[in-house]
Amino acid sequence: MLATHIQALQTMLGEKGLLAARADMEAYETGARYDKGKAAFVARPASTDAVSAVVAYCVEHDITLIPQSGNTGLVSGSTPDASGNEAVLSLDRLADLFELDPVNRTVKVGAGMRLSDLNARLEEHGLFFPIDLGADPRIGGMLATNTGGSRFLRYGDVRHNVLGLTAVLADQAGTVLDLSNALRKNNTGVDWKQIFIGTSGAFGIITECVLNVVPLPRQSATALLVPSDTSKVPALLLALEDAFGSYLSALEGMSGNALRAALDHVPSLRNPFQASTAPEFAILLEISRVNAPREGEQPLDAMLEEVLALIWEQEEGLLDDAFVGPPHELWALRHALSEGVKHSGRLIAFDLAFRRGDVMRFLDQMKAQLPDHFPGVTICDFGHIGDGGVHFNLVVASDDPRLADERFELALRDWVFAVCVNEFQGSFSAEHAIGRKNQAFYDRYTPQELRKLGAALKTITSPGPLGSVDFGTMEN
Amino acid sequence: MLATHIQALQTMLGEKGLLAARADMEAYETGARYDKGKAAFVARPASTDAVSAVVAYCVEHDITLIPQSGNTGLVSGSTPDASGNEAVLSLDRLADLFELDPVNRTVKVGAGMRLSDLNARLEEHGLFFPIDLGADPRIGGMLATNTGGSRFLRYGDVRHNVLGLTAVLADQAGTVLDLSNALRKNNTGVDWKQIFIGTSGAFGIITECVLNVVPLPRQSATALLVPSDTSKVPALLLALEDAFGSYLSALEGMSGNALRAALDHVPSLRNPFQASTAPEFAILLEISRVNAPREGEQPLDAMLEEVLALIWEQEEGLLDDAFVGPPHELWALRHALSEGVKHSGRLIAFDLAFRRGDVMRFLDQMKAQLPDHFPGVTICDFGHIGDGGVHFNLVVASDDPRLADERFELALRDWVFAVCVNEFQGSFSAEHAIGRKNQAFYDRYTPQELRKLGAALKTITSPGPLGSVDFGTMEN
Repeated sequence: MLATHIQALQTMLGEKGLLAARADMEAYETGARYDKGKAAFVARPASTDAVSAVVAYCVEHDITLIPQSGNTGLVSGSTPDASGNEAVLSLDRLADLFELDPVNRTVKVGAGMRLSDLNARLEEHGLFFPIDLGADPRIGGMLATNTGGSRFLRYGDVRHNVLGLTAVLADQAGTVLDLSNALRKNNTGVDWKQIFIGTSGAFGIITECVLNVVPLPRQSATALLVPSDTSKVPALLLALEDAFGSYLSALEGMSGNALRAALDHVPSLRNPFQASTAPEFAILLEISRVNAPREGEQPLDAMLEEVLALIWEQEEGLLDDAFVGPPHELWALRHALSEGVKHSGRLIAFDLAFRRGDVMRFLDQMKAQLPDHFPGVTICDFGHIGDGGVHFNLVVASDDPRLADERFELALRDWVFAVCVNEFQGSFSAEHAIGRKNQAFYDRYTPQELRKLGAALKTITSPGPLGSVDFGTMEN
Repeated sequence: MLATHIQALQTMLGEKGLLAARADMEAYETGARYDKGKAAFVARPASTDAVSAVVAYCVEHDITLIPQSGNTGLVSGSTPDASGNEAVLSLDRLADLFELDPVNRTVKVGAGMRLSDLNARLEEHGLFFPIDLGADPRIGGMLATNTGGSRFLRYGDVRHNVLGLTAVLADQAGTVLDLSNALRKNNTGVDWKQIFIGTSGAFGIITECVLNVVPLPRQSATALLVPSDTSKVPALLLALEDAFGSYLSALEGMSGNALRAALDHVPSLRNPFQASTAPEFAILLEISRVNAPREGEQPLDAMLEEVLALIWEQEEGLLDDAFVGPPHELWALRHALSEGVKHSGRLIAFDLAFRRGDVMRFLDQMKAQLPDHFPGVTICDFGHIGDGGVHFNLVVASDDPRLADERFELALRDWVFAVCVNEFQGSFSAEHAIGRKNQAFYDRYTPQELRKLGAALKTITSPGPLGSVDFGTMEN
C-alpha cells in the first residue's frame, strides 16, 4: 500500500519531490538536537499548488503529514515519530521566492528560505529581518513556532513582524488560503494568519510569508553589567529603559554557571571580567541606532560609557560592576553559553517565560529549592531579561545513574513546569511552541474550554491528520 | 414579553444595570457621528460575571446584544439598528479596574475605561498607552476595532500592544475565557485573544485587557515638510527613516484641501506656511525620545534642523520647503483637519490602507479620475504616510441635490472601494473595522473560503446573536 502511495506521489512531484530511500530520508528524520524518527516517505513539493496536491492526496488516504522547515526546533515538532507511518512534508524546495518591496519595507519569501539566506540578501539593501536567533531555521518554521530571540525588546517576536502568509489546509481539497497581503493596517475581518503562528503547523502548512524588514543598525555599543544583587535587576531594567529608550536593543541575562561553562569549554573566549572567574550573574547590554554618524555627534560607545556612569552615580547600590566592551567579543561570550553548557554534562533544557518582575524571583526560588528536590542538578540559565524569557538549562553529570531512568527527567520537568505555571503564572514554552515534547503539558495546563476550542478550530480548518501536535477532536 | 426580560435583567443587574426608559437610552442609541438606532434595552453589567449572566440570558431568549464601548466608532459597529429589537450591552461600568505592573510595563484595565482616563493615570508613572487617536474611546472598543492612530510607525497598532484579555462568549453558558496573562512570550497553543481583536465584538465581549505601556517621551520636535512632488514622497519616507531611525514617531500626510479647510474654519490656527495659503501636500514629521536631556547633548529640535538641512542638501529635489515648528502648533493644525473638513460640506469618509508605496499613487489616480466619475466631489484626505493608512475624505457641497438620493453615496463608495481593493490590493477598512456600515463590503471582498471559516468560527465561539457584524452561518 505504501509503495502505491510513493509511486503516486513520485508521479505527482517528480524524482526530487519524493524521497523514500532510507539514506535519503535520514536528514529529515533527525532533529537538530534530540529527535530520531522514522518516515514513511519525505515529500518535497516545490510550489504552493504542489503542497496542496500532496496534502489533498494524504488527507484522502489518511496519511499523517509532519510539516518540516529548518528542523532546528527543540520540542520534537518537525520530525516523524518512530512508527514509520508518518510522512514528512519538507518545505526545503520552497526556498527561492524573494520579492522585496523597499518602500513598503516588506519581503515576500518562500517558507523554506533559511534565515541566514534571507538576511544575506537583505543586507545588500541595508535591511534585515529583526528576529535574531542562535540557530539558522527556515522562515516557515519560525512562523510556526513564533520565535523571539535576542532583540525582542526592540523589535518584538515573529508575530509582530509578519504581515501576511499563504497556508494550505489539511482538508479534502487541500484548500489554499491566500492571506498574503502586504498591508500594515487591515481590519476587514478575522486576522486568520494569527492561528498559523506559533501552533506548530497543526492548522495548516505555511508556504509563503510576507515579512516586515527593518534598516540594519549602523552603530552599536555593548557593555557587561554586574548587578549587586539579583533583587536589583528589575530596578536596573527600568533605569536602563529610562536612560536609553528606543536605542536599547538587547538585555541578555547570563548566570555565573553558564558563563563559567562557556569560559571553560570554548577556548577562543577571553574572560572579560576583572576577577579570575565570572560573577554570579551578569547582563549583556546592547544599544544601537540606524543613522550614520553625523559630525559632532557623540559616538555610541561614549554615550554608553557616560550613561552607565550616571546610573552608577544616581542609582547607588544597583551595580557591582559595569564596563563597555567590543560588541563582537561580548556577543561571542553570549553565543558561547549554549555550547559551553552542552559540554558540562547532560543538558535538560527549558524555555520559560515570566512577567519581567518574576524572572529573578523564579531563579532565586529555584536555586533555593532545587538542591532539596533534585540534588546534583546544576542551573545554567541564560535568557532575555527585557522580555521575561529564560532558557532555564539544567545540567546533570553525564555519568549520573539517574539518567538511565526516563522517569527522572520526567519528574524534573513536572516539577519545574508546575512551579513556573502554577506559582508564577508563567509560560512553559516561551518561544519553542508545543511539538510532541510539550503535548502532555499542553493537555495538562490548557483550561478545558480552550482545549475544546482548539479541537473545534482544528475541525474547521484542517480536519485531516497534520502535524506533531494533537489538539484533540470536537468529541473530546 | 420584552417587559418580562427587562424585569428579569433588572433583578439580575440592579437599577443602574438595566436602562429601559427612552430618555435614558438615547445616548446609547446614538453614535459619535452617524448613527441613530433604537434599543430594546441597555444592559450595563459591572463585572465579567455579570456580563456572562446577561449574555447567557440573552442567548437563551434569542435577544441580539450589541456590545458598546466608547461608541466613538465610525462604521455603525456599536449602536442598535432601527428595529427596536436589539439590545445594547454597554461596558461603561467596567471602567474602574487599574492594576499597574511597572516592572512588566503592563496594566490590566476594565474594557470600559476611557483612553484619556487610562493615560491620565499612567502619566503619574511616566507611562502611556501608545495608541494616539483623535477620539476618546473606551479600551474594549479599541481592541474590537484594532485602532492604529498617529504613532503607529513607532509603536504599532492595538494588536501589537495587547498582552491578554478576558472575553465572554455568546453561548448558552456565557463562557468566560480567561486569556488575561501578562506574558510577553507564550507559545503554548492557539493565541485566542487574536480572534477578538479587530472583529467588532462578533466572537465575544471583551471585559478586561492587559496592555503594554511605554515610557512617555520626554523630548519631541516637529517640522512641516513640503515635498516637491507627490511622486517623491516614497523616497522622502525612506530618507527620513534612514536619518532618524527609532526617533521617528509620526509622519502625517495632509492634503492642501484639508489644510485649507482647517485654516479657513478653525480661527485659532495660525498659517505656518510662507505662502498665504497651504501647499498642495504637506507632511507633519515628529521625532521624540524618552531620555531626559543630558549635558552637552544636542537638543532634539537642533538635531531635526540639522538633519533636515542634510537631507535638503543630499537629496536634491525632494523638498520644496521644510521648517521646524513648535509641536503644539503643528499638532493643533493636524488635529484641526477633521474639524475643518466637516465644515466644508457633507463629508463622506473612508479609512483606507495601502502598501506604503501605493498611497500617493492612489491619491494621484483619484485626483485624475474622480472629476470624470463624480464631478463636484472634493478630496480632502489626510493620513499616516508611515504605515500606508489614508483617511480618504470626500466632501460634497451641502446643498448638492445628489445627496437626496442615497444611491449617490453608495455608488461613490462602490467605486472608491473597487479601485482601492481591486486595483491596489488595499484595505477598505484600515483601522475602523467592519460594523454594519462595511458589512456589504466584507461580503463582497472576502474570498468565499474565508467567509466559510468566519461563519464556522462564529459557530464554535459565540453561536448566539451577538454584535453588529454578520459573519454568516456554517450552512451558508
